Amino acid sequence: MKEIKIFCPATIANVSCGFDVLGLCLDSIGDEMIVRTTKTPGIKISKITGQDLPLNPEKNVAGVAAIELLKNMEIEGGFEIEIHKKIKPGSGIGSSAASAAGVVFAINELLGRPFSKTELVSFAMQGEALASGAAHADNVAPALFGGFTLVRSYQPLDVVKIHTPSELYATVVHPQIEVKTADSRSVLKQNVPLKKAIIQWGNLAGLISGLYTEDYGLISRSLHDEIVEPLRSVLIPGFDEVKAACIKQGALGSGISGSGPSVFALSKGRQTAGKVAGVMSSIYDNYGVDYDVHISKINTVGIKVINQ
Amino acid sequence: MKEIKIFCPATIANVSCGFDVLGLCLDSIGDEMIVRTTKTPGIKISKITGQDLPLNPEKNVAGVAAIELLKNMEIEGGFEIEIHKKIKPGSGIGSSAASAAGVVFAINELLGRPFSKTELVSFAMQGEALASGAAHADNVAPALFGGFTLVRSYQPLDVVKIHTPSELYATVVHPQIEVKTADSRSVLKQNVPLKKAIIQWGNLAGLISGLYTEDYGLISRSLHDEIVEPLRSVLIPGFDEVKAACIKQGALGSGISGSGPSVFALSKGRQTAGKVAGVMSSIYDNYGVDYDVHISKINTVGIKVINQ
Repeated sequence: MKEIKIFCPATIANVSCGFDVLGLCLDSIGDEMIVRTTKTPGIKISKITGQDLPLNPEKNVAGVAAIELLKNMEIEGGFEIEIHKKIKPGSGIGSSAASAAGVVFAINELLGRPFSKTELVSFAMQGEALASGAAHADNVAPALFGGFTLVRSYQPLDVVKIHTPSELYATVVHPQIEVKTADSRSVLKQNVPLKKAIIQWGNLAGLISGLYTEDYGLISRSLHDEIVEPLRSVLIPGFDEVKAACIKQGALGSGISGSGPSVFALSKGRQTAGKVAGVMSSIYDNYGVDYDVHISKINTVGIKVINQ
Repeated sequence: MKEIKIFCPATIANVSCGFDVLGLCLDSIGDEMIVRTTKTPGIKISKITGQDLPLNPEKNVAGVAAIELLKNMEIEGGFEIEIHKKIKPGSGIGSSAASAAGVVFAINELLGRPFSKTELVSFAMQGEALASGAAHADNVAPALFGGFTLVRSYQPLDVVKIHTPSELYATVVHPQIEVKTADSRSVLKQNVPLKKAIIQWGNLAGLISGLYTEDYGLISRSLHDEIVEPLRSVLIPGFDEVKAACIKQGALGSGISGSGPSVFALSKGRQTAGKVAGVMSSIYDNYGVDYDVHISKINTVGIKVINQ
């Protein structure tokens, strides 16, 4: 029997002007997962702590992702999975993705890495399909690649890892209110003005350039979402106040993590990221809303092996 | 009296998925311009060769750009300009921009460079306003900065120079048909589907990443315009055939230069760029349409001083 224990990081999708294409990987928050080879074929989920989630592999995002991987390789025996959830479901920082990406990463390690990272993303996307109804790569891509990832295309799947500036930190606050995925989808409009779309892709091009050249000023000037944030932010109590306070504390920019309710800010240096966490906390303290707040360097590696 | 002679390069605007924001600078085709200091204040255009254009500075794009610069600095005396046009007006490779950018570059050199490149872009944009009715920076930015340029924002003006891969060549064919600017504008739609806009900004992010990492495969996969090319290409006879033939010869991608009628292709290496020129020529030979074809390394410097 072989066994691997891994750290499965939280992730931020829909990074500002990079709606639906740009994600990033966090470092200080994530689940743990243990995967063991078994003589019995197939996938068994033996234990889940931290959340009340189904042990039936066909009804569990990690189970579905693992089953998808096994469809693509003939092997003897199977795998047993323990999931220790620390990321809250519905927080908008990739809870289901951490499980889906984690399990395929772990099995790939145990099998001697037969699959590429892009193939692992495609398997993990099936777990996301169970969780949200859409086989998207917004969170599984940064979890598996680390750093900033661009999902350029789905047909064929094309994931591009983007350079991460060395002093870039994320601060994320999770106000514990429920934003229904259906609501966050229904506020979107099917058509957008061409003028706004041009501003959006100009900003995204600026952001990508700023990431490669480590130009924090350019990153800051580019971190604007003209299209989705104005529609979705109304679903998050205190969003405008939090965002303005983050910028005032020196954050480079701020936006909605995934489809919310978490709100992220990016900062140059840990000190600013810490100040940002302070004002995020104060605001939700004032509102009397429970929250979690995380400060994290951008995790350029993605999922990490704890021991093997 | 001081004098400077410069080379004012042609440029490609609206580079594929970078509609309205991304341009590039050519090397093998451009105008020449001579600018001299004079005791007489103001701007005088003493000579224009190659095209029948107004000598009245207020009706000439170079004159207007020069006047705009002088509004921003108190100086004694003025400038006399000779323009030797080689870029055909209406070709879609920045003929007016070469004149507008050239003159402000030359005057800035003669004055000892008091202005930044971004300031020069803002002056040259006034020349473009005379030429096309819109003070855009699509062509003057790459002419002044060289290489690939992103015009991220107009208010305030924010021009970002993007890294150019070392083996990147452009081939441009100018079929000598007239595409009226009004027509190329009227085919655009005010609203675009969000799904297409997302594909477009995913591709632009991929293109920018490919330029920084010199990943020609990624550049090629990203060179698609979902939004404008399908509408405007119908105005250019043979466009689909030319584009398909360029790709077949190994070009990384192909698209409309500016608002046409010129068609460009990008290639890795001069040999492929030459083959692409061959098929472009054959197709317009077959159509019986007059054309010019140019092969150029990407010009990473922009306007060049010939002598001073």
